[in-house]
Amino acid sequence: MHPSHQSSSSIQYGEHGLVPVIVQDNTTREVLMLAYADKAALDLTEQTGYAHYYSRSRNKIWKKGEESGHVQRIIEIRIDCDEDTLLYLVEQTGVACHTGHKTCFYRDITGVEKDPVLIPPDTVYR
Amino acid sequence: MHPSHQSSSSIQYGEHGLVPVIVQDNTTREVLMLAYADKAALDLTEQTGYAHYYSRSRNKIWKKGEESGHVQRIIEIRIDCDEDTLLYLVEQTGVACHTGHKTCFYRDITGVEKDPVLIPPDTVYR
Repeated sequence: MHPSHQSSSSIQYGEHGLVPVIVQDNTTREVLMLAYADKAALDLTEQTGYAHYYSRSRNKIWKKGEESGHVQRIIEIRIDCDEDTLLYLVEQTGVACHTGHKTCFYRDITGVEKDPVLIPPDTVYR
Repeated sequence: MHPSHQSSSSIQYGEHGLVPVIVQDNTTREVLMLAYADKAALDLTEQTGYAHYYSRSRNKIWKKGEESGHVQRIIEIRIDCDEDTLLYLVEQTGVACHTGHKTCFYRDITGVEKDPVLIPPDTVYR
């Protein structure tokens, strides 16, 4: 990327060196998921143009869709007023959720499913 | 609210008893902010129909807009696949950001302002 598109140095990483990342579909405007990034994951995201995150359970950086093919191409990255949260606006290939739903937020808080399964879950990870 | 709209008991609160809450304007679909809720803040949100959060800096529950009048009326609450993040879909009165922008995500990651100031910041807290 052009040098002027390098990330701000003022990101406030949290106690584990991570910043929460809200991911939104740039076309449908659906909120797809919440994930976390460390500086290295953000650098990879900016360098490759595809969303990378830091997995707190696996303690490693991962590229979204690296196994499933359901990658997220970055359209824009925004930062909030206090610089401790990022928003990735993405073009989502396939679905964001391992359940086969487009978004991880497919249920209301009572557990009722509000969005359809788009892809059989057993084919999300191929 | 009707008993069937009580929150799921399966919310996975994090190490500080908090769950991150993504807040989205239900009409414009803008992502407005990220905040945190404990169980009491979520209960208040469901009971009153207005967004409440837990302030990590002030160590207290707050109602969004309690000082500014810029409240968030809850349209729907969603929960993600692993039940550790909430999404509040809201009707935002005024602006969400203390800077006078509609959304806290008004800058791209290089610091360029992409959204206008809608309300003079010095009038956001009245």
